[in-house]
Amino acid sequence: MDALTFNTKHLLYTLFESGVRYFVISPGSRSTPIALLLAEYAENNQAINLFVDVDERSAGFFALGIAKTVLEPVVLLGTSGTAIAEYMPAIAEASVSSVPLVVLSTDRPQELQHNGAPQTISQNNLFGHQTKEAIEINLQDQHSDVTNYIDFMIQRLVHLSMMVPRGPIQINLPLRKPLMPILKDSHKITVKPLTFEEQVPQYQPILIHAKRLLILAGPNVLNSYDEVLNQFAAENHVPVITDVLSRSRGGNTVYGIDMLLEMNRIPVELNPDLVIRFGKTPVSARVLQWLKNRHIETWHIDEDAGTDHTRHISRAINMAPKSFLNSSQLTLSDEQKSFNQKWQVLPKSQSVDNEMSVVPAIDNAVADNTHIFVANSMPIRDMDNFFSGLHTKNVFANRGANGIDGVISSALGMAASRQQRSLLLTGDLTLFHDMNGLMMAKNYLLPLDIVVINNNGGGIFSFLPQAEVSEYFEQLFGTPLNIDVSKIAHLYDLHYTKLNVPEELSDILKIPVTGTRLIEYQSNRRQNKIDHNNALRLLK
Amino acid sequence: MDALTFNTKHLLYTLFESGVRYFVISPGSRSTPIALLLAEYAENNQAINLFVDVDERSAGFFALGIAKTVLEPVVLLGTSGTAIAEYMPAIAEASVSSVPLVVLSTDRPQELQHNGAPQTISQNNLFGHQTKEAIEINLQDQHSDVTNYIDFMIQRLVHLSMMVPRGPIQINLPLRKPLMPILKDSHKITVKPLTFEEQVPQYQPILIHAKRLLILAGPNVLNSYDEVLNQFAAENHVPVITDVLSRSRGGNTVYGIDMLLEMNRIPVELNPDLVIRFGKTPVSARVLQWLKNRHIETWHIDEDAGTDHTRHISRAINMAPKSFLNSSQLTLSDEQKSFNQKWQVLPKSQSVDNEMSVVPAIDNAVADNTHIFVANSMPIRDMDNFFSGLHTKNVFANRGANGIDGVISSALGMAASRQQRSLLLTGDLTLFHDMNGLMMAKNYLLPLDIVVINNNGGGIFSFLPQAEVSEYFEQLFGTPLNIDVSKIAHLYDLHYTKLNVPEELSDILKIPVTGTRLIEYQSNRRQNKIDHNNALRLLK
Repeated sequence: MDALTFNTKHLLYTLFESGVRYFVISPGSRSTPIALLLAEYAENNQAINLFVDVDERSAGFFALGIAKTVLEPVVLLGTSGTAIAEYMPAIAEASVSSVPLVVLSTDRPQELQHNGAPQTISQNNLFGHQTKEAIEINLQDQHSDVTNYIDFMIQRLVHLSMMVPRGPIQINLPLRKPLMPILKDSHKITVKPLTFEEQVPQYQPILIHAKRLLILAGPNVLNSYDEVLNQFAAENHVPVITDVLSRSRGGNTVYGIDMLLEMNRIPVELNPDLVIRFGKTPVSARVLQWLKNRHIETWHIDEDAGTDHTRHISRAINMAPKSFLNSSQLTLSDEQKSFNQKWQVLPKSQSVDNEMSVVPAIDNAVADNTHIFVANSMPIRDMDNFFSGLHTKNVFANRGANGIDGVISSALGMAASRQQRSLLLTGDLTLFHDMNGLMMAKNYLLPLDIVVINNNGGGIFSFLPQAEVSEYFEQLFGTPLNIDVSKIAHLYDLHYTKLNVPEELSDILKIPVTGTRLIEYQSNRRQNKIDHNNALRLLK
Repeated sequence: MDALTFNTKHLLYTLFESGVRYFVISPGSRSTPIALLLAEYAENNQAINLFVDVDERSAGFFALGIAKTVLEPVVLLGTSGTAIAEYMPAIAEASVSSVPLVVLSTDRPQELQHNGAPQTISQNNLFGHQTKEAIEINLQDQHSDVTNYIDFMIQRLVHLSMMVPRGPIQINLPLRKPLMPILKDSHKITVKPLTFEEQVPQYQPILIHAKRLLILAGPNVLNSYDEVLNQFAAENHVPVITDVLSRSRGGNTVYGIDMLLEMNRIPVELNPDLVIRFGKTPVSARVLQWLKNRHIETWHIDEDAGTDHTRHISRAINMAPKSFLNSSQLTLSDEQKSFNQKWQVLPKSQSVDNEMSVVPAIDNAVADNTHIFVANSMPIRDMDNFFSGLHTKNVFANRGANGIDGVISSALGMAASRQQRSLLLTGDLTLFHDMNGLMMAKNYLLPLDIVVINNNGGGIFSFLPQAEVSEYFEQLFGTPLNIDVSKIAHLYDLHYTKLNVPEELSDILKIPVTGTRLIEYQSNRRQNKIDHNNALRLLK
């Protein structure tokens, strides 16, 4: 076996041994040996899931969606040049939202660098600060130390991508022609395993003394604490404000905090004297500001604790929320029970007609434990305000950098990694931005219902100060696309249904289909602004 | 006037004073003050061209297309987060193809960095080596030195983007809320001009002694030497091999060198003893290899001379080809005339039926001086082999990193910056990859004819060794998209015509339309491979 084939097999087998099961390939010439050997392996191994996505930008977000769902590193394989640069947006999101990705960026060999060779950019460490580590491996270097280095480093890097804070890594692979590997070779590859042992820590009990304790469950990457949290809250009468991405919403938790705060519906007597905050930055911008303005003592408990752009938290405890809940020792006051009751009887925010009421329709219509992906801008805000978690706690979003890019692919990645139908709630602008992502829906018949609120442009801007500058508003911010969603469905051979009133959603979701379905709800940005004001008035 | 408005006006006015006329905005909240003040200025100034593109990836390539055509720096304005990361592919291409771009990346203020704030990634110097310079300016810092710094630095950076080798720069702009600028303020902004003087160099005559001199005109960024070259070649009987991107093809130049070399149709007696090579790496990979294999002395003359990934050139002269031609002193042998004649009577490569023959159809059909943009992979190779330059020398491509991404937007950017209709030749895979770019065609009714050779997938791979591995070929390389081009036209409200036989193109192009027209030619990857072999046989 030549060095290329031998070392590439080591690279791939070490990835498999390290637990990588999902690979997203974007076609190209330079990546030929890796793609072929991977396809050969996948053919004989059901555990390997191989997807081919011709648009690398979409591929990046597709891998991100898988990784967010299965909570393991997903490999991206791309060819040299701008193809690798196309991964940048997904890598940036993975970096700030702590999602493990492994980029295998194939490259031209060293002698073709910086010298006018075609399809060659400076791609070693291309992603800079956005990756946790970036290394380069010459697979064609025939030396036992190199093979040994591959075995060792790949295991270490895959592990690194999963260490807190999780994140993306890049492995740059310069390759010289000829690029054809030897296929159908039966030579057995053995990889010396490096075990990463999980030591079970013995925590000192964390003492909590409070008169009025409140928990703020923020966006949660790992769905590992909602049962413990529910039990903890019930036993100790602790009100829990659940972010829609906390994967803990439902039951007696408090939601819609953003609108309650906007309408000053939290009187001083509801001020906690201690807040325990879990997870990432909440969707509601007002809730952290409220803690700061009211000088409420706040602790942040997270495996990666200490991030708070309001700079208000006073104690950061690096710990999984579950371990924290299990090991804490509470001393609460008599007040706690009545304090909790006051929180529980706060009015629930209610959507009014039109766009907003799509959220309660989803709340009612989805099957139990459906995974829901939510686009940024308006949909995530509406979900945070109005979604009760009646049937499912599994709500996801790209809530690191909050981009409107790549959302379709991320949701499709989620759908691809599960057996059941998932749902995406998005606006038309976000749908358009990653429309190319729908190619995967078409090619792999992925089980996703995409509810598109079509308000013809950027709805969020109507809520910002520039809405007052009518002259340039539509040109610079509203940006109506006048795109016909049914034509998008037609182009990608997807099912299409018009949602005339939100309540019809239950019936629509009951109609069994194979593959992806676009469900369009026509809205209007102007009316939506009025409706939101009316919804706020209901809380007065 | 507040610091934000005052300094933003300085930023913008200095850009105008430095000669920037084209701005491509992608909407967002963080960029609000700059977008609004720019829109206000553009309203009263016809010289400013402002485009709004909601997909930042497309916006990057749209700006690139403009900059390639007008040969001046084009500004990209984007909002914080992954939106800026979306520019990466276009910036990478601009870097290796020496195109001036100025990215204004708006950002969150310093106190929101690295601390969990939404829509915040590490974006200062995001593009790393791909930019020539990356600076950060705090526009809200009210200090006369800051304003003065803005006036000075913007002039210097715009100039830097135009210095050889041209390239992109990033100006990161952290902005703190409130973001609304003061509009309709009549306060006059004055900017102290910094003049960058062009010294006219007096070159020593460059002495050329050769028995058999040949010129190889490679891809040319500046269309500034074809007349001088023609005259030089005619007077001195110098054969000129013109790359399709040399902007010098036509008349007595030699083209189709790649097929001639593939068929060994260049006998030893046609070996030059000196080759003068202009510009960037030629489309034909064989021609540089031929010079190296035959040990032919080669000089590289370019403003940015010295790039040669075959590492064969022996003399790199940093000089514009035009200056070189004007200042050289030739001593040629008696052989030169007959040497030239032998080159001129070489057979011209001829396309055979189907896909390939779209190129001669374009050759014949386009109006004089039409600008033609060509996609990478098969179209650029076919154009290099078969395009004679009958009516136009103006052929462009993204031939730095040779990506299949962003081509639609680049061609639309070219069309947007000109008054006449332009033409794009592309395959279906490249069309799909940047389909979103068509939103600009729809919104701005851009005058472009897009000839799509639809061979349902990646045609180039049929010419590579992996074509032999039939098992994984379609899945990994052929990647048929089964996309209906007429549906794409329908979705974006574009004109659509089917090209049944290539010869119909003349008639189609004569039908006047407003906006963009998709012209689809159905092809077949398998047949195309056979056809190429037949075309080669014609040269035997």
